[in-house]
Amino acid sequence: MGETNRQWLLQQRPVGMIGPEHFELRAGPLPEPDLDAGQVLVKTLMLGFDPAMRGWVEDVRSYLPPVELGAPMRASGIGQIVASRNPELPEGALVQGLLNWQEYSIGDPKSEIPPRVLPEGVTPSMALSVFGTTSLTAYFGLLDVGQPQQGETVLVSGAAGATGSVVAQIARLKGCRVIGIAGGSEKCQWLQEKCGLDGVIDYKSENIDARLAELCPQGINVFFDNVGGETLETAINHMADFGRIVLCGAISQYNEATPQPGPSNLMLLVARRIRMQGFIVLDYLDRADEAFADLATWVMAGDIAWREDIQSGFENIPATLQRLFDGRNQGKQLLQLADPE
Amino acid sequence: MGETNRQWLLQQRPVGMIGPEHFELRAGPLPEPDLDAGQVLVKTLMLGFDPAMRGWVEDVRSYLPPVELGAPMRASGIGQIVASRNPELPEGALVQGLLNWQEYSIGDPKSEIPPRVLPEGVTPSMALSVFGTTSLTAYFGLLDVGQPQQGETVLVSGAAGATGSVVAQIARLKGCRVIGIAGGSEKCQWLQEKCGLDGVIDYKSENIDARLAELCPQGINVFFDNVGGETLETAINHMADFGRIVLCGAISQYNEATPQPGPSNLMLLVARRIRMQGFIVLDYLDRADEAFADLATWVMAGDIAWREDIQSGFENIPATLQRLFDGRNQGKQLLQLADPE
Repeated sequence: MGETNRQWLLQQRPVGMIGPEHFELRAGPLPEPDLDAGQVLVKTLMLGFDPAMRGWVEDVRSYLPPVELGAPMRASGIGQIVASRNPELPEGALVQGLLNWQEYSIGDPKSEIPPRVLPEGVTPSMALSVFGTTSLTAYFGLLDVGQPQQGETVLVSGAAGATGSVVAQIARLKGCRVIGIAGGSEKCQWLQEKCGLDGVIDYKSENIDARLAELCPQGINVFFDNVGGETLETAINHMADFGRIVLCGAISQYNEATPQPGPSNLMLLVARRIRMQGFIVLDYLDRADEAFADLATWVMAGDIAWREDIQSGFENIPATLQRLFDGRNQGKQLLQLADPE
Repeated sequence: MGETNRQWLLQQRPVGMIGPEHFELRAGPLPEPDLDAGQVLVKTLMLGFDPAMRGWVEDVRSYLPPVELGAPMRASGIGQIVASRNPELPEGALVQGLLNWQEYSIGDPKSEIPPRVLPEGVTPSMALSVFGTTSLTAYFGLLDVGQPQQGETVLVSGAAGATGSVVAQIARLKGCRVIGIAGGSEKCQWLQEKCGLDGVIDYKSENIDARLAELCPQGINVFFDNVGGETLETAINHMADFGRIVLCGAISQYNEATPQPGPSNLMLLVARRIRMQGFIVLDYLDRADEAFADLATWVMAGDIAWREDIQSGFENIPATLQRLFDGRNQGKQLLQLADPE
């Protein structure tokens, strides 16, 4: 165990694109060595990155309190327990939790999102990718909010992302026709060849509106939107009657310095009786086992493809977050800090 | 029975504000005197006006086909049967149906929205106002789509309108706290004193945002929106977690020559898990009796206030539609053409 605990602290709230300049690297002392009963000391092995993290640094009322200035950036991660006062979380165990951008943290089972021991056979990167929060998001957002029926057409934006690619494949497994929107031929090829999508739209080289007219002549029954902005407006024009729009996020908007106008065609929601609904995966954590059981079945059967983009180096943490916003990540964005001992 | 049938025909599709210049008054022959078996000849006594009619003249795919150029404008009305080949629709009976902007029409029970005989004790104006489509819209939109729970806060825009005022009063009857937005002190006073609202906002003299902060400190649970535009954006900022936005219409937008930008704060739908849903009352016609039974109970108990704004004169029909869009109407907009014989 090292003697210091390096942390990336939020130094300034970003206006516009988030970057390393908004964080400060500080080497502090290890967390309090005197653990309370039930607590554990966790060494961070791997961190996960998600576009939603951009929202956590905004000073607005949301589903989680904003990360405070001077506090380590909030992040999911996998760690190993290096000291324990909890028999259910023994020394050496690998756990998943909100470990934040730091080398060591205290895990407390009484916290709102307590550390959980990784199931047998699940590697740290799998726990953060195909068995991570993004897959829970995909599972409940698609099935619970979107309620796709067999034979329906499902459109997914951000389809090559960790959430989008799992949404698309669950929709395929449920018997839907699945169209994905992604950026670049490499991502589109992966979606079509490895994820089994029925159609892909490369927004970098194709006109989304024209391609949707071709690919969804009967309209879109479920649109799972990770992107927002113009993509959302265009998709609304192609929605079928009684369609459902699942609002998962809006990566096109997160780094805008000023709020951008919304879709000018919302009145189509009336004429076509469309339901547009936002959701947060935290509301489904008590049903996580349901999703994990299905995901494990699909993963073991080889029915779900996924990719991991694993960076390394504590100093590269803030720059790695940016990869999500310029689309450089190829699969779930991760960063490895250490191997388990 | 007169020898001619005057009609207002759609002459030109409006771009921007609809007005008399888009219609042509023509005196044609009576509809075909040889009725088919089952058909009736109906003389129009009274017409109803609704903001949704603005959408019917747009040449876009919607829940009803657009009114064709050269065809009489589509409209609900009350008529009297003056010739009948249908024992269930006898001569002299008062019926409700899509009579259109004309003095005589043929009623056919096999049409999609067939003429219905007015129930005993329901006057023509009541059939178009408190027992009209706007009340069905209010009933199913609020209860089925909005699903208000006792004790929740319900906000209604266009609250003094035929739909909005019934929404607000049903919400009150269901035990909700009800806030209404309307234009002008006269409408606001009527809402507070006669409709029993808990709070009113006069958008012509008050700041909606500031007033919502005062009146809905715990947030809005159900927003029934008839207005759209900036009102919708402002209300989204005040929605509570798990709130429902019922999109009924957008009177602020109907006469815009170009599509206006939508709300810039749609991402709050994600963070607050908000459902925004459009609906069309036609989907509920098979459940109309359910609504009429409740409405009749409330009307007889004096629990619902309503107002009728009755214009007259065939030549004034197009100008009467405009009254809805400049807010001159005080209550359900109607126009009387003739008394029953």
